Amino acid sequence: MKMTPRVRKILSWYESDNPGTKANLARILMQGRLGGSGRLVILPVDQGFEHGPARSFAPNPAAYDPHYHFQLALDAGLSAYASVLGMIEAGADTYAGQIPLILKLNSCNSLATAKDQAITGSVQDALRLGCSAIGFTIYPSADAAFDQMEEIRDLAEEAKDCGLAVVIWSYPRGAISKDGETAIDITAYAAHMAALLGAHIIKVKPPTAHLEQPEAKKVYEKEKIEIATLAQRVAHVVQASFAGRRIVVFSGGAAKDLAGIYDEARAIRDGGGNGSIIGRNTFQRPRAEALAMLDEIVKIYQGKA
Amino acid sequence: MKMTPRVRKILSWYESDNPGTKANLARILMQGRLGGSGRLVILPVDQGFEHGPARSFAPNPAAYDPHYHFQLALDAGLSAYASVLGMIEAGADTYAGQIPLILKLNSCNSLATAKDQAITGSVQDALRLGCSAIGFTIYPSADAAFDQMEEIRDLAEEAKDCGLAVVIWSYPRGAISKDGETAIDITAYAAHMAALLGAHIIKVKPPTAHLEQPEAKKVYEKEKIEIATLAQRVAHVVQASFAGRRIVVFSGGAAKDLAGIYDEARAIRDGGGNGSIIGRNTFQRPRAEALAMLDEIVKIYQGKA
Amino acid sequence: MKMTPRVRKILSWYESDNPGTKANLARILMQGRLGGSGRLVILPVDQGFEHGPARSFAPNPAAYDPHYHFQLALDAGLSAYASVLGMIEAGADTYAGQIPLILKLNSCNSLATAKDQAITGSVQDALRLGCSAIGFTIYPSADAAFDQMEEIRDLAEEAKDCGLAVVIWSYPRGAISKDGETAIDITAYAAHMAALLGAHIIKVKPPTAHLEQPEAKKVYEKEKIEIATLAQRVAHVVQASFAGRRIVVFSGGAAKDLAGIYDEARAIRDGGGNGSIIGRNTFQRPRAEALAMLDEIVKIYQGKA
Amino acid sequence: MKMTPRVRKILSWYESDNPGTKANLARILMQGRLGGSGRLVILPVDQGFEHGPARSFAPNPAAYDPHYHFQLALDAGLSAYASVLGMIEAGADTYAGQIPLILKLNSCNSLATAKDQAITGSVQDALRLGCSAIGFTIYPSADAAFDQMEEIRDLAEEAKDCGLAVVIWSYPRGAISKDGETAIDITAYAAHMAALLGAHIIKVKPPTAHLEQPEAKKVYEKEKIEIATLAQRVAHVVQASFAGRRIVVFSGGAAKDLAGIYDEARAIRDGGGNGSIIGRNTFQRPRAEALAMLDEIVKIYQGKA
Amino acid sequence: MKMTPRVRKILSWYESDNPGTKANLARILMQGRLGGSGRLVILPVDQGFEHGPARSFAPNPAAYDPHYHFQLALDAGLSAYASVLGMIEAGADTYAGQIPLILKLNSCNSLATAKDQAITGSVQDALRLGCSAIGFTIYPSADAAFDQMEEIRDLAEEAKDCGLAVVIWSYPRGAISKDGETAIDITAYAAHMAALLGAHIIKVKPPTAHLEQPEAKKVYEKEKIEIATLAQRVAHVVQASFAGRRIVVFSGGAAKDLAGIYDEARAIRDGGGNGSIIGRNTFQRPRAEALAMLDEIVKIYQGKA
Repeated sequence: MKMTPRVRKILSWYESDNPGTKANLARILMQGRLGGSGRLVILPVDQGFEHGPARSFAPNPAAYDPHYHFQLALDAGLSAYASVLGMIEAGADTYAGQIPLILKLNSCNSLATAKDQAITGSVQDALRLGCSAIGFTIYPSADAAFDQMEEIRDLAEEAKDCGLAVVIWSYPRGAISKDGETAIDITAYAAHMAALLGAHIIKVKPPTAHLEQPEAKKVYEKEKIEIATLAQRVAHVVQASFAGRRIVVFSGGAAKDLAGIYDEARAIRDGGGNGSIIGRNTFQRPRAEALAMLDEIVKIYQGKA
Repeated sequence: MKMTPRVRKILSWYESDNPGTKANLARILMQGRLGGSGRLVILPVDQGFEHGPARSFAPNPAAYDPHYHFQLALDAGLSAYASVLGMIEAGADTYAGQIPLILKLNSCNSLATAKDQAITGSVQDALRLGCSAIGFTIYPSADAAFDQMEEIRDLAEEAKDCGLAVVIWSYPRGAISKDGETAIDITAYAAHMAALLGAHIIKVKPPTAHLEQPEAKKVYEKEKIEIATLAQRVAHVVQASFAGRRIVVFSGGAAKDLAGIYDEARAIRDGGGNGSIIGRNTFQRPRAEALAMLDEIVKIYQGKA
Repeated sequence: MKMTPRVRKILSWYESDNPGTKANLARILMQGRLGGSGRLVILPVDQGFEHGPARSFAPNPAAYDPHYHFQLALDAGLSAYASVLGMIEAGADTYAGQIPLILKLNSCNSLATAKDQAITGSVQDALRLGCSAIGFTIYPSADAAFDQMEEIRDLAEEAKDCGLAVVIWSYPRGAISKDGETAIDITAYAAHMAALLGAHIIKVKPPTAHLEQPEAKKVYEKEKIEIATLAQRVAHVVQASFAGRRIVVFSGGAAKDLAGIYDEARAIRDGGGNGSIIGRNTFQRPRAEALAMLDEIVKIYQGKA
Repeated sequence: MKMTPRVRKILSWYESDNPGTKANLARILMQGRLGGSGRLVILPVDQGFEHGPARSFAPNPAAYDPHYHFQLALDAGLSAYASVLGMIEAGADTYAGQIPLILKLNSCNSLATAKDQAITGSVQDALRLGCSAIGFTIYPSADAAFDQMEEIRDLAEEAKDCGLAVVIWSYPRGAISKDGETAIDITAYAAHMAALLGAHIIKVKPPTAHLEQPEAKKVYEKEKIEIATLAQRVAHVVQASFAGRRIVVFSGGAAKDLAGIYDEARAIRDGGGNGSIIGRNTFQRPRAEALAMLDEIVKIYQGKA
Repeated sequence: MKMTPRVRKILSWYESDNPGTKANLARILMQGRLGGSGRLVILPVDQGFEHGPARSFAPNPAAYDPHYHFQLALDAGLSAYASVLGMIEAGADTYAGQIPLILKLNSCNSLATAKDQAITGSVQDALRLGCSAIGFTIYPSADAAFDQMEEIRDLAEEAKDCGLAVVIWSYPRGAISKDGETAIDITAYAAHMAALLGAHIIKVKPPTAHLEQPEAKKVYEKEKIEIATLAQRVAHVVQASFAGRRIVVFSGGAAKDLAGIYDEARAIRDGGGNGSIIGRNTFQRPRAEALAMLDEIVKIYQGKA
C-alpha cells in the first residue's frame, strides 16, 4: 500500500529516531483495515499472566490456543498483536510477516506480593521473533515506579538502537485512590511521563472526569480545561502527549456491553486519540461475535459508524 | 563570535577537563545574546515530569508542544535548553546545531512515593541527540542522596570521558525543614557538594537569610558572614563554589511577578552569580510576554537594566 | 547565527542520521564567513605527514607551529580545520569551541612502502578533543582499498553512533594511470564510492577531462555527458554524489598561482560544488597573503568575485 | 633526594605489593621536609563535604579556593594532599607533579540521613588526575560498615592493580558510645581492621584511655597493657597495625590550641606513630599562622622540637 | 624541588593531556641534576634485545646485572631510565620511586627475519611497575611501519587515559639508503611523524647534512634551510617537532670517543634540543668512566661545559 500523507505526518513526529524504528512504526500504521489512516486497533493478550488462564480464556476456550489470537487479529484486519514471550513464541513462525507484533517485556500477575512487574522478555527476543516493537508497563505512583522507569529506559535505548519501536502502558497505581487511577489529571500525567520516557506509542486507560491531585484540580478549574465528556478528556490526554506528537491508544478495560465499547471508541476518535487496544472484550467473546464487534470498531475509526 | 577573555578565563577554571568538555562549555558560554559575557540564561523544561502536564502547560497551552520551547530559547537568545529524554527527542532533529542542549538524566514526579528520581536518559542518548551536557538532580538530605551521588559519579565520569559537560541541580530536601531547603547555609552547602562531585555548572535555588543548621548558624554569626541581601547571599554561594571557580546559576522557582523576577536577576548579577535557569516563569506566560521578560533579564545580565 | 533555509535543506539530505551528527554538520555549515550559505572552505593540514615537515612548512616557517593553523582558519573565517592527532592535540584546548575540528583518522607518508595509510586516531580521540567529524582517506584502485573501506566502515559506524560526522577523502591511485587519478570518470566514481560508504562530506580532486576506463569512456561519449569545462565536470561529480544529496568539496592540490586557484573556485561554485579544502596553497604562503587569498575565495563562494 | 634506609625499610613491609604501589608510597615518604624520615604530615581537605563550606572555610576565607590548599601543602613542605574529586580536579593540572595527591573516594555530609558515605570518585579518576593513592573511610560499628568494607575491598584491589596506594580512614561509630569512638580498645581495633582490609596507610583518631568493650577491658587489665599516656596508646595502636608493619597516621580532629596540637604530635612521635593528618587546624588559621604551626609540627617529627 | 617556570612552560605545550600525564612528564623533567632546566638525559638499555647480551654487556660485565643500570642512572643524576619488561621487572621494586621509568613496549632483535619489533609489554605492566611513561619504536619506511603506527596509536590512547606519558623512538629504515636513515630531511620527518602520532617525548638520531629525498632536497635548497652544523640540524628537527612544542631527545648511537660525545651534546644543547638518550656509550664503559662522562654531559646541558 502507498504511504499516506497522514502516516507520513505521524512518522515525522519521531524526528530523532532511526529509519528502522520508523519502518516498524510504519508497518503498524499501514497494517490492516485502518492502514494509512493514522488510527489503529491493537489486540493485546497479557491477561493470562495478569489474571490467570481460566479468568482470561474460560469464557471462550478457543482462546487458550495462542494461534487463535494471531488469526483473530489478522482476520479482523487489526494493526498489531501484542503479547508476552511464550504466546508470541507459540505463533511467531506460523504468522511470520503477516501482522506486526509487539513483545510485552514485563508482566505482572495476581499472585504477586508487590505492585510491580517481572521482566519476561528481551530486545533480542523481539528481534528473533520478528516483532516491530517492545511493550512495557509502568505503574506511576507505585513504590516500584522508579525501578520500572529505569528498566524501560535501558530497554528502550537498546530497542531504538536496533530499529524497534517502544510502546509504554502507563497505568498509575499505588499511592493514589482507586478513582485516581483513571482520573483525568492522573491519566494525562501518566501519558506525559510515557512520552518523556521516550515512548513512540502510549497506552493509557480512558480517563474519568475525576481530579485526584488537589494542586492539579486548582489548575484545571482556573484554566477551565474542558473535561466534561470523554472526547474532551481524550483530547486533553493527546495534548499532554506532546501536543499530539505521540501516538496515544486507549485500553478497553474490564468487559462491558457493546454499546459502551462503541461509544468509547467514538469518543476516542472524536477526541483525536489514535485508537484502541482491546483485549478481554475481544477474546472473551465467541470468535464470530468478536469479529463483528471489531468490524464495528474499525468502522467507527474509519468514520463510517 | 570570537572567544572573549571572560569566557577564556572561565574555561581555564576547568583545568582537568579535556578539550571536548571545554568546547561544549564554550558552546553554552558563547551562545545567544549573553554569549561571551560569562553570564548565561538557561531554559529548563522538566516541570511536566515533576508536576504533570496541566500544572505545567495549561496556563499557556502552546507549551504542550516540545518545539515551542526550543523555538522560545532560540528566539529569546538564551544560552541553552535543558529537558528530559522525550522532549529532547521530539525536537533535536529540527533544531540540530541551533542551541546547546542539556539532557536531564534523572527526573522525579509528584506521584512518586519516595524522595528520589528515576534515571531516564544516558550519556549515549546525549551524544546521539547532539547535547552539550548532561544534567542531574541530587537531593542532599534525602534518604536517596547517597545513591544519587553515586549515580551522578558514574554518569559524570562517562560524560567527561566523551567530552560532555556536567550540570548538577542540587536541591536539598528530606531531613531538613521546609525553610531549610532554601536556607543560606544549606544552599551554600548544596552548591559546594555539587562542586565536590565534579559539576561544571551548579544550579541551586536563590537562598533566603534563614540558617538551618545550629552548628552552621554559630559560624555564620561568629564570622559575620554577610547574608542580609540576596546579592550578599549569592556572593556567598559563589564563594562556596570553589571561590568562584565553578559556574553557578540560580533557578527561578514558583511563578512570581515580573518585578520580583527582575530584582532576583539583579541580585544574582550583583552577587557575581553566573545567571538564571528559569522555566515555569517563562513558559507559563504567553509567548510575547515571555520574550519581553527574557529580554529584560538578558538586559539585566548585560548591565543595561 | 540563525539556521538558514539552505543549511536546513542540506541537513535534510542526511535523513538517516541522528540529531548529534546533524548538529555537528550544522556547526560546520554555520561557521565562519560562509556560514549559512551551504558553501564551505576547510583548512586541512596533513601534508606534514604526507610529505614531511620541510616540504610542507619551510616556505612559511610560522606554519611549523600547530597553533598557527587554528588561528589562520579562525581569522580567515573558514568553516573547519582538519588535521591529524598530534596537531589537534597541540591546539584543541587553546581553541576549544572556536572552530569545528575534523580529526583525520588515517595518514600516509612519503617514506611508506605501500599505497596505504596507517590509522592514527580513534573516534574516542575525536570526542575527547571536541571534534565535529572524523576524516578518512581511501585509495580506490590501490591494493589496500578494500582494507581501507572496511576500516572506515567500522569507524564511521562508531562515529555516527556518537553523533559525529564523517568526511571521506577519496583519492584513486594504484592500478590506474597517473592521468587516471584525476580523470573525470574515476573522480566521479571515487565520489560515488565515498557516498556509498556513508560519507557525509566527500573530498575529491578537481577532475580533468581525461577518461580512464574504456567501458566508461563509451558511456560518456554515447550519453554525451558534458565534461569540457571544470564547472561541467564538477557538476557531474556532484551528480554522482547522490544527485547533490551529499556535500562535495574539492582539494586544491599542489601550489599554483592565484589566478589558477580563483578560477578553480569559480568553477567549483558554478558547477554546484560545496566548496574547497585548501591546504598547501594556504599555509605555504605568508600569513597576510594567505588571508588575502582566502578572502578572495570566500568572496567567490559568496558570489561576490 | 636519595632513598633513605628508613624509607627502604618501610617499603619492605609492603612485600606483596607491586613496584607501582611502592613507588607511589615512596613518593609520599620522600616528599617535603619530612621526606626520607619515615614520618609524614598530610593535609586533608574533605571537611567541606562533611560540615559544609562555611563551617570549614569561613574562619579563613582564602581557603574557599581549591588552589589554596595545594599551595599550602607545598609551601609547608608536607608529604601529601588529600581531597575529594572536585577539589582535586580544580587544581591537579596547575600543581601536576608537585605534591603527591590522595583522592578520597567516598564522602559523607552532615545533611545525610544515614551513617554512611557516598562513593564520589573512581580509581580511573585517580589515574587521570595523577594521584598516588586512593583514600576511603570506613565506619566500623555502623550499619553500613560491611558495605563500606566490601566497597573498599573492590576499590583497593583495582587500585593496587594499577600501582596506586590505599589509605583507609577508620572511624568507628554507630553501635558504640560517643566515648567509645575514640576508646583505645576501639581505636586499636579500627586500625587493625584497616590493616586487615589491606590498607597501606591507616588513619585513626588519637585514642583516649577509655575502654569501650567489656571483653576487651578484661584483657587490657589482665595483660596490663599500658595506655595511661597518649604516647603509650599510640604505641599500642601501632602495635595493633601489624607490629608496626603498616604506616599509621593520626588525625587532629576539631580545632584546638597550639600547645595541644604540639603535645599531640610529640606523643604520636614518641609512641612511634608515622605522623599526622591535619586539616581543620591548618586551613582554618590564617596562612601565615598555619605555616608557622606546620613548621613546628614538622620540627617535632624531625626531633627538633 | 619547586616547579620551575621552564618546566611549567613545557607542560603547557601538552594542553590536551590530563593531569596524570602531566604529572608523569613533570616527574621526568624535575628529576636528577637537570631537574627543572627543561633539559634531560635518559639512560636506555634495550641493546641486549637488539644486539644480544655479549655485544651489549661484555665490554663491561657489571652491566649484565639489571640493578647496575638503575643504580647508574640514579648515581649520575639522570632524568629517567628506559628499558624492556624483564629488565624493569628485575629492579623496579628495589628502586621504586627513586627514578622515573620508561617501559619500552616493543623490541627488535638481530635474529629477526623482518624489520619490525615485537610488542613485549603493556600499559598495565607500566602501571604495575610504577613507570612514568611507555616507550615505543617505529621504523618509518619499513614494510612494518603502518602496523607499528597503529600499534602505538592503540597503546598511546590507553596510556594517556591512565595518566602515563608516551615516548616514541622514530628510527627510519627500510626503503631508504643507509645514509638516508640519519639524513636531515628524513630525521626531521621522523620527528614530525612521532609528534603527529601524539608522542610527548620524541627520540631521533643526530642527523647528518645528507638529504635523502629528491623532492625534499629541492625545498631545503630553495628555502635555504640551514643544515651545515649539527646545532643547525638539531634546531631544524626541533622546529619540525611542532615548532618546539614537543620534547625532543637525541640518541648517542654507536660508541664513539668522549670528545665526539661531548661535541654532540653541545650541538644538541645549542640547537635547542631537550637532551640526550645515551645507552651503549654509557654502560659499555667502566662505571667510573661512565659516571665521569655523564657528569660532563650534565654540565654541558647546564651550560657549564
